[in-house]
Amino acid sequence: MYQFFTDPGNICGKDIYITGQDVNHIKNVLRMRIGEEVSVVTQAEDKEYRCEIEAFEEDRVHLKLRFIKEENVELPNRIYLFQGLAKSDKLELIIQKAVELGVYEVIPVKMKRCVVKYEGKKEEAKVLRYNAISEAAAKQSKRRIIPKVSSVMTFGEAIKYCEAMDIKLLPYELADMKAMDKTRELLKNIEKGSSIAVFIGPEGGFDDTEVDKAVEAGFEVITLGRRILRTETAGMTVLSWLVFLLET
Amino acid sequence: MYQFFTDPGNICGKDIYITGQDVNHIKNVLRMRIGEEVSVVTQAEDKEYRCEIEAFEEDRVHLKLRFIKEENVELPNRIYLFQGLAKSDKLELIIQKAVELGVYEVIPVKMKRCVVKYEGKKEEAKVLRYNAISEAAAKQSKRRIIPKVSSVMTFGEAIKYCEAMDIKLLPYELADMKAMDKTRELLKNIEKGSSIAVFIGPEGGFDDTEVDKAVEAGFEVITLGRRILRTETAGMTVLSWLVFLLET
Repeated sequence: MYQFFTDPGNICGKDIYITGQDVNHIKNVLRMRIGEEVSVVTQAEDKEYRCEIEAFEEDRVHLKLRFIKEENVELPNRIYLFQGLAKSDKLELIIQKAVELGVYEVIPVKMKRCVVKYEGKKEEAKVLRYNAISEAAAKQSKRRIIPKVSSVMTFGEAIKYCEAMDIKLLPYELADMKAMDKTRELLKNIEKGSSIAVFIGPEGGFDDTEVDKAVEAGFEVITLGRRILRTETAGMTVLSWLVFLLET
Repeated sequence: MYQFFTDPGNICGKDIYITGQDVNHIKNVLRMRIGEEVSVVTQAEDKEYRCEIEAFEEDRVHLKLRFIKEENVELPNRIYLFQGLAKSDKLELIIQKAVELGVYEVIPVKMKRCVVKYEGKKEEAKVLRYNAISEAAAKQSKRRIIPKVSSVMTFGEAIKYCEAMDIKLLPYELADMKAMDKTRELLKNIEKGSSIAVFIGPEGGFDDTEVDKAVEAGFEVITLGRRILRTETAGMTVLSWLVFLLET
């Protein structure tokens, strides 16, 4: 069954409306019919409105509510993935997978060893595209929110942005080879409800000075195991671990 | 530093040789020089021979041993990923990520709801290519073995292949929404050293009859959380969880 996002203002008792780009998609791409079942979520609540299509209007689709499903689909923690810039196709994969795994927000970060550099208008267009990828992945994985992909930040801006977050994790390939036990202990003690920042280095890895700055700002260095993970695998691994530990 | 695989027969005291396709790669692609440091592993032992290049011979590269590093890089468990067939580019991504995360063997499996079908010669060529991807990922992630990608099996053959394995896991999106606690308990009790089979459904998911057959054969149904994961994300997630729990 297809899922769509709508504004809370489009929910009027048992009458629910889908507006925007999805209207054309429903009518002309999916070619859905009256009576077909769809799932609607609002980003404002962790619940799902199960509806059927009542009528096609010119710029909206009119649905009738069948029932409401209230189940936690969102993780109990807000996880912010700060990702060192990578090539676009890699970053797109990272965003798609992070959204499937329950991320709350993705922040692309310029770091010293980033090979890729974005600037100006090109950057704006990319951020729009990244948000579209997040929306598609949110629909497909049946999220209740569309995780935001923010504009590209500098390392300093990123450190500042996560100042008030409860838990700050930085996986580092030069972490002590015996750090796995420490990493397990640290992660097991994360409480449900706390906010979590995860910093992932770019393809070239973190620069030493970046690791030092992060540690000064309260980050804990963790290991992801004894094999070398690519940048896109590192974030997915941390997110998977947090799902394992925190999912209700 | 680059890592290469060699046969145990190529290690003669302090003289170590690289043969095969890597010779051309070292000479003409990487353009390495005498004195450069390389890492050599044999697949037969969990240790790394740290060498420097001594001389370029016509069909082999002659190295001198500097020292041996003995650290467990391999997971203490053999994990067999049985992956429902997906399109080639997806399967390539799955193999790359599984190798990074420490898989022991990947077995592509024909399942009822597979959209893709391979046959005959084309299949053989693909399996060769998948093994080349595994080798590249093994080098890059500094594995001590090159995980095998086996020929495509039927569902029945796959069930038979894992008959003697200790732990058999089948993530299923229709698992009870409250199954997370059960899943955590089950995985936490896996002992180091045991062999683990993980069955991942294709893009269309498992057919009910396949789940029934697997349960009869001793598989435990687990959940991967409350969001819907794509087939390529499901295997990575289970592998990540096993790394978290079992890494030494």
